[in-house]
Amino acid sequence: MLRNDQLDQWDHDHFFHPSTHLGQFARGEVKNRIITGGEGVHITDRDGNRLLDAFAGLYCVNVGYGRQEIAEAIAEQARELAYYHAYVGHGTEASVTLAKMIIDRAPDNMSRVYFGQSGSDANETNIKLVWYYNNILGRPEKKKIISRWRGYHGSGLMTGSLTGLDLFHKKFDLPLSQVLHTEAPYFYRRADLNQSEAEFVAHCVSELEAMIEREGADTIAAFIGEPVLGTGGIVPPPAGYWEAIQKVLKKHDILLIADEVVTGFGRLGTMFGSTHYGIEPDIITIAKGLTSAYAPLSGSIVSKGVWDVLERGTDENGPIGHGWTYSAHPIGAAAGVANLKLIDKLDLVTNAGENGAYLNKSMKEALADLPHVGDVRGEGMLCAVELVADRDDRTFFDASKKVAPAIAAAMAKRNVIARAMPQGDIIGYAPPFCLTRDEADTVVAATADAIREVLG
Amino acid sequence: MLRNDQLDQWDHDHFFHPSTHLGQFARGEVKNRIITGGEGVHITDRDGNRLLDAFAGLYCVNVGYGRQEIAEAIAEQARELAYYHAYVGHGTEASVTLAKMIIDRAPDNMSRVYFGQSGSDANETNIKLVWYYNNILGRPEKKKIISRWRGYHGSGLMTGSLTGLDLFHKKFDLPLSQVLHTEAPYFYRRADLNQSEAEFVAHCVSELEAMIEREGADTIAAFIGEPVLGTGGIVPPPAGYWEAIQKVLKKHDILLIADEVVTGFGRLGTMFGSTHYGIEPDIITIAKGLTSAYAPLSGSIVSKGVWDVLERGTDENGPIGHGWTYSAHPIGAAAGVANLKLIDKLDLVTNAGENGAYLNKSMKEALADLPHVGDVRGEGMLCAVELVADRDDRTFFDASKKVAPAIAAAMAKRNVIARAMPQGDIIGYAPPFCLTRDEADTVVAATADAIREVLG
Repeated sequence: MLRNDQLDQWDHDHFFHPSTHLGQFARGEVKNRIITGGEGVHITDRDGNRLLDAFAGLYCVNVGYGRQEIAEAIAEQARELAYYHAYVGHGTEASVTLAKMIIDRAPDNMSRVYFGQSGSDANETNIKLVWYYNNILGRPEKKKIISRWRGYHGSGLMTGSLTGLDLFHKKFDLPLSQVLHTEAPYFYRRADLNQSEAEFVAHCVSELEAMIEREGADTIAAFIGEPVLGTGGIVPPPAGYWEAIQKVLKKHDILLIADEVVTGFGRLGTMFGSTHYGIEPDIITIAKGLTSAYAPLSGSIVSKGVWDVLERGTDENGPIGHGWTYSAHPIGAAAGVANLKLIDKLDLVTNAGENGAYLNKSMKEALADLPHVGDVRGEGMLCAVELVADRDDRTFFDASKKVAPAIAAAMAKRNVIARAMPQGDIIGYAPPFCLTRDEADTVVAATADAIREVLG
Repeated sequence: MLRNDQLDQWDHDHFFHPSTHLGQFARGEVKNRIITGGEGVHITDRDGNRLLDAFAGLYCVNVGYGRQEIAEAIAEQARELAYYHAYVGHGTEASVTLAKMIIDRAPDNMSRVYFGQSGSDANETNIKLVWYYNNILGRPEKKKIISRWRGYHGSGLMTGSLTGLDLFHKKFDLPLSQVLHTEAPYFYRRADLNQSEAEFVAHCVSELEAMIEREGADTIAAFIGEPVLGTGGIVPPPAGYWEAIQKVLKKHDILLIADEVVTGFGRLGTMFGSTHYGIEPDIITIAKGLTSAYAPLSGSIVSKGVWDVLERGTDENGPIGHGWTYSAHPIGAAAGVANLKLIDKLDLVTNAGENGAYLNKSMKEALADLPHVGDVRGEGMLCAVELVADRDDRTFFDASKKVAPAIAAAMAKRNVIARAMPQGDIIGYAPPFCLTRDEADTVVAATADAIREVLG
C-alpha cells in the first residue's frame, strides 16, 4: 500500500480530474479524496470516513455499493474472456443476453440495442443514426436537433452542445450550429409567475411550435429530452408536458430521443421513465443504471421504425460506418446482466418508488418552515431542494455566494453526500434504490441541519 | 448455458452490431460468432474453433488473451469498490497510481492525464481542450483542426470527422466544418510514381503549408496524426516526415496531437510511437494498449505547456465544464495498472520490436514472388500486405471485387484472423506482443496460402 503523502503528490501532479478547478487542485488548495470501499448506500475513504452517498456516485450506483453478485460476474468474465470485439456479428453470451434483457424491459416497439461505453457516446451514436436515417429517407436537409435549456446529454462536442447548461458551453465554443435549445420544462423557474402549470405547458408547446415554424420542420430531425431534467436541476415535468410535446413532434415527423441515462432501469419507480410519463420514443439512451456503474456500458435502443430504415441503409450502402472498439465490452455486458438480475431479485424498482416517495415526502415536511427553501420536488428516487433569497418573491441568490455548495459541504461534514447542482442553488439527491426509511431520515435531517447552519 | 439456436435468435433480433451489414445480419444471411475464451494469441468460439488472432481483437489485446494477473486485479477492484467518480478531486488508489505510471512512461514534458473510456472520447476531450486553450490565450479564431486523409481518430461526430476515411463519412454528413484534411503520408499510394521518398515528404509538407496559407495560420488550432497510419492502411511514415511536418507546425504555433491509441504502450517496439519517430506532441491520445482492452479506458496526456494554460483557464473561469461519469473508472484503472506491470515484467515491448521485425521480414520474403502483392510494410508488431491488380503499373483492384475480404476469409478458414482494412485491398496484422516466431510463421503461411487461393 502506498503512503498517503506519496499518493497525494501523484494525484496533484499527474491526475487531470474532471469537473474540477484545475489550478486550485494542482496547487493543493483543494484536498483530494481517495475512496476505498463501499456497502449499500455508504462509501468509505482512505482517511476512515464513512459517508452516506445520497447521490449514488453520479446517480449511477443504483443497486448500491459492494454487490458481490456483480463483482463475481465481472471476475468470472475477466477470467474467461475479458475482451473480444462486437464488429461484423461477433459477440459474447453476455452481450447477446443483455441485448435481449434490455428489449424485454424497454417500452413497446423497441427493437435493437447498440452498445457504447458512456451516456455521452450513446448520444453521439443517436445523432449519427438520426442523420443517417434522414439521408436514407432522402431528406438531407432534415438534420437539426432540438434540445432544451437545462437538458443534460453529455460532455463531448455534440453532446455538450445538446446539453443546455452554461458551464458546459462557456470557453468551449458550444453549442455547435446544428443544435437548437427550447424552453426548459421547469415550472418553478417560469418567467411569468402568474402562469398555472397548464398555462406553462401551453407556453412550452408554443415556444417549440414557434421554433419549428421559424426553422422549418423539414430542417429538424429530432427532439431530445430527459423524462425528468437531471443535471439541469432535477425537475419533473409539469403535468401534461410530454403528451403535448409529442403531439407537436408527431405532426412534424420529428423523431423523439428519450435520454434515460438517469431514469432508465428503475429510478422513477418504473423500469423506464418513458413508460412512467407515456413517452413513445424512437430512440432511448441508456447508461448509468444499465450496470449500476460497476463497469462502463451504455446503449442506444432503437425502435422498429428506425431499425427498418437502418437496414435499408446498409442494403443500399454496405456495412454501417460506426463502431467503438469497446462496443458491448464483455466486462460491461457481464456486469449489466448481473445488475438487471439483481434489480429483479431484490425488487429494487419497487423500493425506488416507495422509499423514494417517502424521501420526497419527508423532505417536504422537514423543510416546510425554512424560509430559504423555495421548492422541494422529485419523482421516485430523485429529489431536489431549491434555495431562494426570498420565498415569496422567488428571488434567487447571486451565484457568487455559492449557497448550494456551502450547504453540500455542511452536509458532508455530517457524513451525507448530496450534490450541489451546477446551475442554480439546488441540492440534488439520487440515492441508491436500496435506501431504507431510516437512511432517508438521516439524509433529510442532515439537509435541514445544513441549511440552518448556512442560511440560519 | 443457453442453447445456441436461442442465442442466435436473440443476437439477430436484438443486437445492433457495430460496423456490420445490418440487413444481412438481421436476416441471418451473415452468421454470428460467439467468442467464449482465449489464451495468448488464440481465441476460441462457441462452436469449438480455435483461431490465431493476428489482429489482437482490434489491435488492442496487446498482452494477449487470458492473462489471469489482469483478471485478478479487475476482480479484486470489483469486490472492493467497483465505482466511484473522479469529479472534484476524487479518485482511487488505482487511478492515481495509473496516472503516475503513464507519465513515467510518456515522452518528456508530459504533465497530466485525463481519463476517458475510449479512443474516440479521448479525442473529443482533446478537441475541447484545444479550443478552450485558444480561448484562454485570447485567440478565439484559432480553432480549425487539420487531420490527414486515411487518419483514424474515432467514430463520433467530431472524431469521425477527424477520421479521413469514406466509410465513416458517407451518409453521416461528415466531416463537420471545423476539420480539414491534408495529404496522407502514404508513399506507396503517392499520386506521382516518379517521386522519391524524400520528394514525397516535400510534397506532403508543401500541401500542408499551402493549406495553412489558404486558411490562415491564425484559424488553425491543431494538427492530429497517428505516428503510423492505422485503420487507414497500416502505413509507417516515409523517412523524415515527422521532422519536416513538425517544423511547419511550430512555425505557425499549431498544437500537435499524437494519436497513439494503436501505437501507445509498445506496439512499435518502443513505449510510445512519438519517441520512436522523434515526435514532440502537445497532447497524446491513449486507449487500447493502456489496458490491453481488459476494461474500457482511455486517456489524454497533456504537456506542461498545455496544462499551464488550462490552470489559468480555471483560475479565470472556475471548474472546467468537462466530465465523463466513468472518467478514471476504478475497474479500468485497476486493469491498466496490472497491464502496464505485466508488460514490464514480461518485457513485451522488446518482444513486440523483435518478433514484430521477424514477422515483417518473413512476410516480405514469403510473398516476394506473388504477382498481386504490391507492398509489404510495417513497423514493430504492425504489418500490412497490399494487393494490386498489376504490380508493375501499381493498378488497384476495383473495390467491388472485395479482394482483401476474400483473402481474410480464406485465412479464417485456416484458423488465422487478419483484418481486411476498410479502404483499399489491404490485409492488416497487429498481433499480441507475445507472438512467438512459430506463431509468426503460421500467420505468414496462412497469408501466402490464402492469397494463392484467391488470386492464383
